[in-house]
Formats: sequence, C-alpha cells, structure tokens
Amino acid sequence: MTERIVIENLATIPEGNVTVAGWVDKVRDQKKVQFVVLRDESGAAQLVHPRAEESDPIADIISGLATGTFIRVTGELKLDERVKLGGLEIKIADIEVVTAANPETPIAADSGIDKRLDWRFLDLREARNNLIFRAQTTLEHAMRTYWIERDFIELHTPKLMASASESNAELFEVEYFEGKAYLAQSPQFFKQMAQSAGFGKIFEIGPVFRADPSFTSRHATEFISVDAEISWIDSHEDVMKMQEELLVAAISAVREKHGEEIKELFDVDVVVPTIPFPRIPLAEAKKIVAERGYEVPRKDDDMDPEGERQIAAYVAEKYGHEFVFLTDYATSIRPFYHMRNADDQTITNSYDLIWRGTEITTGAQREHRIDILEAQAREKGLDPTELEFYLDFFRYGVPPHGGFGMGLSRVMMLMLHQPNLREVTYLFRGPNRLTP
Amino acid sequence: MTERIVIENLATIPEGNVTVAGWVDKVRDQKKVQFVVLRDESGAAQLVHPRAEESDPIADIISGLATGTFIRVTGELKLDERVKLGGLEIKIADIEVVTAANPETPIAADSGIDKRLDWRFLDLREARNNLIFRAQTTLEHAMRTYWIERDFIELHTPKLMASASESNAELFEVEYFEGKAYLAQSPQFFKQMAQSAGFGKIFEIGPVFRADPSFTSRHATEFISVDAEISWIDSHEDVMKMQEELLVAAISAVREKHGEEIKELFDVDVVVPTIPFPRIPLAEAKKIVAERGYEVPRKDDDMDPEGERQIAAYVAEKYGHEFVFLTDYATSIRPFYHMRNADDQTITNSYDLIWRGTEITTGAQREHRIDILEAQAREKGLDPTELEFYLDFFRYGVPPHGGFGMGLSRVMMLMLHQPNLREVTYLFRGPNRLTP
Repeated sequence: MTERIVIENLATIPEGNVTVAGWVDKVRDQKKVQFVVLRDESGAAQLVHPRAEESDPIADIISGLATGTFIRVTGELKLDERVKLGGLEIKIADIEVVTAANPETPIAADSGIDKRLDWRFLDLREARNNLIFRAQTTLEHAMRTYWIERDFIELHTPKLMASASESNAELFEVEYFEGKAYLAQSPQFFKQMAQSAGFGKIFEIGPVFRADPSFTSRHATEFISVDAEISWIDSHEDVMKMQEELLVAAISAVREKHGEEIKELFDVDVVVPTIPFPRIPLAEAKKIVAERGYEVPRKDDDMDPEGERQIAAYVAEKYGHEFVFLTDYATSIRPFYHMRNADDQTITNSYDLIWRGTEITTGAQREHRIDILEAQAREKGLDPTELEFYLDFFRYGVPPHGGFGMGLSRVMMLMLHQPNLREVTYLFRGPNRLTP
Repeated sequence: MTERIVIENLATIPEGNVTVAGWVDKVRDQKKVQFVVLRDESGAAQLVHPRAEESDPIADIISGLATGTFIRVTGELKLDERVKLGGLEIKIADIEVVTAANPETPIAADSGIDKRLDWRFLDLREARNNLIFRAQTTLEHAMRTYWIERDFIELHTPKLMASASESNAELFEVEYFEGKAYLAQSPQFFKQMAQSAGFGKIFEIGPVFRADPSFTSRHATEFISVDAEISWIDSHEDVMKMQEELLVAAISAVREKHGEEIKELFDVDVVVPTIPFPRIPLAEAKKIVAERGYEVPRKDDDMDPEGERQIAAYVAEKYGHEFVFLTDYATSIRPFYHMRNADDQTITNSYDLIWRGTEITTGAQREHRIDILEAQAREKGLDPTELEFYLDFFRYGVPPHGGFGMGLSRVMMLMLHQPNLREVTYLFRGPNRLTP
C-alpha cells in the first residue's frame, strides 16, 4: 500500500515529515502563498506552499489543481493553532497529481436532489454524506453483534422466487430462462421456514424489491430490509422486547462513535431511547388522535401518515419518547399469516413501530397452526394451492414464532433528521431512477 | 418468551426441575419405559418416561408423537453417565404437543439431494446442516469485524441496474414499470464508485445474479458475493495481502467456535492457513501443470478446473498449503477494467484465489486512468457510450484502487469439504430450481 497517513491520525503523531493522499477540496492561490484543502476518507487538512521567487514547479502544479483531483503529497507537518482545520498544516515538499479531475464540476452545494443523485459519486464526497455511511456501518455492526451474542443465525434468503412472497401487487417479474421468476418483496416466508427448520433465532439484512409506483419521501423500489424472526414466543410482546433492546444497542453505538460529528455536521443529537418504549393499542391510538382533533380519513381500520405523526406528538408530550409501538392492528388490514388475538378475532398479535411520526417496522406473532393458517389464507381470498410450499412448513411441526421487518434507510433518515430516503441511500432506486 | 432452557445449557445447571422445548427426533416406545430424543437449535437430549401400571396420559401422548412434532416438556433433570446424549436425561412430568407433525416424512437419511432440497426445511433440521449456518454466521461476523476494525465502510449497492454491470451475457432482465431493468451480476461498478466518492475502503456481502445455464457443483443463478475494494494500493499485491489476512481471521474464528463440532459431524479439521499464501504467476502455473503431465485443453490463456486442481496439488506437496494465488492473468481473458502490467501489456495486475483446487475469488487492481480505461473498453469491443455512467467516475478524480469478489457458499463448501454448493446454501437457486 502507498505509505500514507490518513488525515484524522495527523493529530496523533509528532511534527515532521509525512505523506498524505486524497482529493483537492479547495485551492487558495495567492500571490505569496498557496493553500490547498485536502480531503480523504477520514477528514480534511490544510496544505501550504510559500511561492518561490523564481521558477517554482510545485506552485505551477497547485495553480492547475481542479477540485476533486486526487493527489499525493509529502511535506512537513507543523502544529499551528491558528489553522482552523485541526490546528495543523503540512508544508508541501513534493506533490504528485494521481488523477486530474475534470475542472467543470457538474454539481454545486445548492444543486437539487435529482441533480445530486445523477452525480452521486461527487455528492458522496461531502463530509456529511460520508458520515451517513460510516454511521450506518456502525449501526449495522451493533445490530449484528447484539444478535450474534444471543446465538442468532444469519440468513441469506433467495431474492428470486417462483411466486409472490406476500401479495401479487407490487411484484417485479424476471425473465428466468424459459419461464418467469419474481423478486422477493420480503424474506417473510423464508425466515419463517427457518423456524420450522429448528434454527430458533435468525436475522437477515438484505435487499427487497417493491414495484410500488409511489414517489413519497419514504418509498423506494429496492431497499435494505432488516429482518429478525424468533421461536418460542408467547406473543408479539416478545418480539417488541427484542426489537427495542436491539435499537438501543444500535443507536448507542452510533452515538458513542459518531455522536459529536453528527452534532457538528447535522446539528442533530443522537438520542438513545429508554426501555420500554411506550405501547398503545391501535384502537386507543385512533381515539387519542381523534381527541387531538384529527379524524383519520381512511375507510379501513388503518392509521395514516398524519395519524402516525399525531400519535408521535402525543407520545413525545406525554412520555418524552421518540418511539411508540402501535399494537393489536385490526385483522382486516393485516396479512393472513398474522396470528389473531385468542380472545378477540378482530385484532391481531401485531404491531408497527413509529419513530418520530414515521413507521419503520411491522412486526407480529405468526399463525403456526396449519388449519387456522389455511382458513385465514382462504378468508383473505388467497388460493392455498398457490401457497403450498409455504403451508408445508407448518405441516411437519413448527414452534410458535414471530418477528419483524425494518427499513434500514428509514432508520438512518430518522436518526439523522433527513427529509427523505434519497439522502441516506447509497444509490436510490425509484420508479424513474435506475442510474447511476 | 416461553421459559425454557436450551439443550446445550443443560450441562451447566444443577439437577432439578427444568422446561425444554423443541422437536421430536426419535421415540423408543418400549413396554416399561419410553424414551424421546428431543432436539432444539442447540443440541439433542434424552427424555424418559417410565410407564405407569394403569391409565397413563403422558404415555399415550408419547406413543402418538411423530418425528418433527414440536413439544414443550417440563421434568426433572438428572445426570446419568450411562446416557449417551450429554450424560443427562429428563424425566417427563408434563408434556405439551405444540404442533403435531404429519407422520409421513417425505425425506429420509438416504434421500437424494434434489428430494432433500424440495423439503429443505426438514433437511435443515439435521444437526450437520444446522451447523453449516452457524459456522457461516461466525465466518461472516469475523470478516465484518476484521473490516470494521480497519475503518471499512459497509455498502449496500443496488441490485437493479439500467444496464449490464460487466457483460451482456448471463444477464437477468426485469420488467420495470414501462421499461426494463437488469439484475446486478456483481457490485463491481458501484464498489469502484465508492473509491471515486472518497470512501477509501469498503465491503459488501450481498446477493448477485447470473443467468448462467450451467449445472456444475460450483454454479448458482443467485449467490452471496463477498466484496471488498480499497484505495491507494500500489498493485494487486495489496489486495491479496488484505484478503489473506481476512481469511485467516475468518477461518480462525470458525475453528475456535465450531472446530470440535465440525470434526465430530463432518470429520473435517478446520485448518487455519499460514500467511503469506503462495503466489504463482499464471504462466508459470501452466508450465508446472504441464510438467505434471496435464496440458490445459483451452485455446485461450486461461486455466481450467482440472488445471486448478493440479496446481493446488502441486502447492500442497511443495508448500503444504491449501491456498494459492494465481497472479498476472493474461489481458486477453480479463475484463477491460483490470489494470495491465506497466512493463508487459499482455498481462494484468490480477489474481484468482484457489482453495484446494477450486477458484473462490477473482481480484485485481483496477485501471483508474480514464484514457487508458476507455481504450481498453473499446479494445474489448464494448461501446463506451453505454458505459458513460461508469466512465464518469474516473473523469472527476479517483485514487488507484483494487478489490476482490468471493463466493460465500464456495468458501463454506471448501471449508466443510462438501461436494457442491447446494449442500451449503440455505435455499439454492439454479436454472431449474426456484422453489421452495
């Protein structure tokens, strides 16, 4: 590897000769002295070059540097409290242009989101954007570590399926040799299969696909779903308990590793929630929202996004909490595989998790009794013969189980107070965006 | 959660009252005493019930237990050295049938692989198969931990693309609203994009898709690719160095956590390789193979699978090593984006990694100089206008970089000495397999 020191480590070494490498962020080309702000994956530093009286090849190189050009620089590191960037500066002794950038940069700080996404690789050079993905890396690793310390098995379920995983709507069709395949909308059936296979506790972090033509701030046609499924639960309460512990572990890790930088670049405090998160049955939540003057304008029994914001506001006021589990969703609006309440068949052992007004998760206990499961499928208008491969999982024994699915980018969006998924997704995919 | 103790923890608690839960593996229904072998995600234990003289409801339940039925049992744990299963036994006080299994099990120990895959959820109940996925979980976590300790960023690149990622062959086409999309054959372009974005070092573990009609033991239409890409390398040597360290960390973790159990169930020693792995330029490897009496029957400059086995045998004999990096592949058989050797344009800065005769990785330094990259694309018969979005990454500055892609299931197959990918994939996908 090129011998170089990453910029964030400059503060930890003594003054003297160093090599750094990265891209040119800014050049101030003054008469007597030239300054270059150099950035790499870890931060930014100031390079300085006092112009020589006569021929000065280094000055000529610096004068020609375009923003984005990658350079390698050797020079003398000096501490200098007056320098804003970390209180240090490197006096250039040698400079090498590694790749010259096209000087006409296609995006600027005030470019719109679509333009920025067209040039995402340049947009991602922004320190804020780089931080999003470092924070996401920490979040994911903390979640996986939480699970692995508790003996969960990591799954990779197939994304190519012979039939729909949940409904025939929003399904992408694939040409598969002489036939057709479909892209998985969720790992639902396959993570339940692991329960019948006796895996006990599993998780998966992987892509899912929805042929959803919406253009909201919260939808994408491809996104990363964080899924877990556990055996031997008594009800959805056991799933919620695991999920809230998981989120506390994950958010704590982000706060610890990146909290200060997030405060600086996003002006956001990463708040670690307290356990337990508040829980409100959906019917009660709708009453609370109605008392606040908002009637959910839906004919079915579901909440709507404004209702979710209202109940979040209520929870923030009453409990000082950013999260709320809405529980016991009506049978009419839940899929056939959600278990119904033993005492009230009109509601299910299920929940949604709302974070600051936006839904990030649906979870539930699953129906594991084959006769009831078949009846519920029929009642929802599904043809059990098309579900045979799934129903078979329940014919040869399966423990009571449940789990959840959570959108990774929604979590990042809410944690960093961002306005939409596009900002926090490496490469967003929507109905009219398939590039870059 | 149901109060229960997982079986592997029975050995750590005192004799007395316990609750266990899992599925019935075997029943020995004798005249005076009944035995049940119970399995859960962690192991197997013996349950015992001495028949009563008169009416005995527990005995009736046990007599009716089908293999695979999930039960919950409370009873008295007793240590008993005569019991083969862990030297302990639970005397049943109470038994509850949670889900009765269909007594006609569709597969048996001697069923063929296709039949077993049709009933994969039952096949996965085998202790060996369960162990595969626990070992894989450990392997992946060790790899991610290696990377995260070294400040790599985890990426999730999109699997839906507007055009081919590498070649137009083996590409799955997706109906995408009014148009078409394609499934990513690799994250190649998008992980290189991260280098231009200044991410420095990245990894991804995610699915890739190949419309490859082959039916070999080593191919699948969907598989998990382990990818890494790093900036500021001097050559492919830096990539190989990272990969061998990564594999040592990962294989060590598996050996430490599961080595004994793998020895017991697979009769396989997990061997941690020594560093550095042997490196042999491809041209030299072909000479060595020829001297061993095998002429690679290919017209191009590539190795073939038998050649890979031969060179692996040579390396095993000469260096006592299971791994070998074959380096410096001919330009003619490498993609346009592999960097060529500065002194010899007929070879590339690339490698394959062979483990016990099977290729598990292709890696390379990438060409980052836009003029050369465009020329190489043209030379390979590609139309640079179709590659514009990719070529743009290089027009605005990019550091020298390289990386590799490694098939996760190939690693598991070779580590556990399994004959094919089907055995080590949760749900295999091939040209004629899309279910379950």
